Amino acid sequence: MALLYTSLPDRAKVWLPMLEAAGERMIIGEDAVTDPAEVTYLACWQPPADLSRYPNLKAVICVAAGVDHMPPMPEGVVLTRTIASGIETMVRDWVVMATLMLHRQMPVYLEQATTGTWQAQGIYPSHSRCVGIMGMGRIGALASQTLSGLGFDVAGWSRSGTPVDGIDVYGADGLSDFLQRTDLLVCLLPLTDQTRGILNADLFAQLPHGAMLVHAGRGGQLEMDDLQAALDSGRLSSAMLDVTNPEPLPSEHWAWTDPRVIITPHVGSITDYAEGAQHALNVIHALRAGEEVPGLVDQSRGY
Amino acid sequence: MALLYTSLPDRAKVWLPMLEAAGERMIIGEDAVTDPAEVTYLACWQPPADLSRYPNLKAVICVAAGVDHMPPMPEGVVLTRTIASGIETMVRDWVVMATLMLHRQMPVYLEQATTGTWQAQGIYPSHSRCVGIMGMGRIGALASQTLSGLGFDVAGWSRSGTPVDGIDVYGADGLSDFLQRTDLLVCLLPLTDQTRGILNADLFAQLPHGAMLVHAGRGGQLEMDDLQAALDSGRLSSAMLDVTNPEPLPSEHWAWTDPRVIITPHVGSITDYAEGAQHALNVIHALRAGEEVPGLVDQSRGY
Ligand SMILES: NC(=O)c1ccc[n+]([C@@H]2O[C@H](COP(=O)([O-])OP(=O)(O)OC[C@H]3O[C@@H](n4cnc5c(N)ncnc54)[C@H](OP(=O)(O)O)[C@@H]3O)[C@@H](O)[C@H]2O)c1
Ligand SMILES: NC(=O)c1ccc[n+]([C@@H]2O[C@H](COP(=O)([O-])OP(=O)(O)OC[C@H]3O[C@@H](n4cnc5c(N)ncnc54)[C@H](OP(=O)(O)O)[C@@H]3O)[C@@H](O)[C@H]2O)c1
Repeated sequence: MALLYTSLPDRAKVWLPMLEAAGERMIIGEDAVTDPAEVTYLACWQPPADLSRYPNLKAVICVAAGVDHMPPMPEGVVLTRTIASGIETMVRDWVVMATLMLHRQMPVYLEQATTGTWQAQGIYPSHSRCVGIMGMGRIGALASQTLSGLGFDVAGWSRSGTPVDGIDVYGADGLSDFLQRTDLLVCLLPLTDQTRGILNADLFAQLPHGAMLVHAGRGGQLEMDDLQAALDSGRLSSAMLDVTNPEPLPSEHWAWTDPRVIITPHVGSITDYAEGAQHALNVIHALRAGEEVPGLVDQSRGY
Repeated sequence: MALLYTSLPDRAKVWLPMLEAAGERMIIGEDAVTDPAEVTYLACWQPPADLSRYPNLKAVICVAAGVDHMPPMPEGVVLTRTIASGIETMVRDWVVMATLMLHRQMPVYLEQATTGTWQAQGIYPSHSRCVGIMGMGRIGALASQTLSGLGFDVAGWSRSGTPVDGIDVYGADGLSDFLQRTDLLVCLLPLTDQTRGILNADLFAQLPHGAMLVHAGRGGQLEMDDLQAALDSGRLSSAMLDVTNPEPLPSEHWAWTDPRVIITPHVGSITDYAEGAQHALNVIHALRAGEEVPGLVDQSRGY
């Protein structure tokens, strides 16, 4: 029984002592594997091309929160994504910041600053604005609490429509109603076959005129050309993107210099190495005890 | 008994029906005063030069939250500033936004965007950073709750050191200890003789190297040249200013184009007209009932 680790060397320095202290054997890098039958867990960002080399593999532990880049797992191998409160609160903070930045007209003020223009814009009271969050999972639910605490009218949308404390959550078939009501749209969806390209002209057209977009899900969910057209038509007034399509965004892309768009380079969160190692240990222990595996990915739905 | 109103015509349109509905007489503009003895309350931003014209004046009701521009009041006249939850939550939101923007390196990302550079910076976990709030009054206390809810280590500083729920508040003589501990300094002080120019080289020198400044108090508290020197020496790494010195900031001022500084044109809050009229009514009723006057300014200390 061993965990094969194929991610960053710096992260390994934190993981190794933690796994050893917990009595687990950790092998760093495929070259160090002497007996492939020994490998029961694999911790990685991108798995090796041929997983059939490891006949006793039970789980692939993705060292990040998203698994949209993962290939299908062999029969009998579970896939987990890292669950860490540090990731969730960091993305929550980025979303709260971005929502306030659009709500309080930062794109206009940043543009005005380039010409030294001191000119106040109006302020909507927060309670008069609806923040609509697509994806009410671990992060969406957390963001909804902070934003409603700041006084925004907050609504959510998810596949199941599972209720979240005090927040209206629309189910899959409630998308139009949800969008009609939304002034500030926040995307916190996982990237799957169902959500690829979901932020497109058709969706934008269902928002109120002048709506704003905060995107912290995955770049592949956003049609950048449709975003530009929606900004040009006034359907959207501004957007703040932590993820882009393509990603990284090429330096000559129009979005970098469009004053209506603010971009950060996929920095919603970083995974704390110790939190990641703890997650790996939690997965190993749960599998051994036959308990629910933390961060288990439903491979048929893709998240 | 009448309220003389000398502020914006648009605001008057909201005030007049509210005061009339409450059975109060409201006179709009000094020219409309036929009997100066009738004027018992004055609602204004800047009062008329000669208040002695109104022998029965009891209270001056400032239509905004700050009274640093007010002249001394005649004997027996109380001065109030507008108390409205809308003002406080708007400034709180601006402060939360600005603190997150500096904490999450927005000045660097905005600068990188100008050259289309996709380059992630590190993220400190919020719990490892201390936000120090100067001025723990109505707004400072509110901001402290949201920021500590986001996980920051929050400390406060005020004249009295009056404790606030769960937050360490240093008193006047604890300034050095407070500054030493502060990574993100937030100013929410009123402008008085004691606080004019308080954000200066001497104060910055007591902060840890690379600290950040969020300024939402009053422009006159900040020495802009000292700010520039502190940025140049690395003592401060970035600043976000809603108030500047002078204000408005001249278009050719260095701060507009300094990538380490983000400026908004004094838009922390706007006073909702109806909330302002309600405040005026509350003041009138309290004076009549001999109760504590809301927003009463202690004229000797200046806030
Ligand atoms: N920018 C960054 O740095 C960063 C960092 C971390 C994560 N993220 C992104 O944030 C996403 C969410 O993370 P999380 O931890 O909150 O995930 P999660 O707990 O798995 O939640 C996912 C949510 O999306 C909903 N959903 C999935 N597919 C849907 C569909 N086709 N239609 C409607 N709703 C759908 C789910 O609905 P149900 O509740 O019905 O299952 C759930 O509410 C990640 O997948 C990743 O893309 C970004
Ligand atoms: N940017 C904007 O748009 C905007 C909008 C509204 C207000 N503001 C600014 O925010 C300020 C605060 O508003 P507020 O409603 O929170 O005021 P407040 O309730 O009167 O609170 C003022 C706070 O400052 C402290 N203080 C005053 N003088 C001090 C001194 N010399 N040394 C140390 N502490 C001192 C007070 O200490 P004690 O608790 O001991 O009295 C109190 O904690 C306003 O005065 C204004 O300058 C800005």
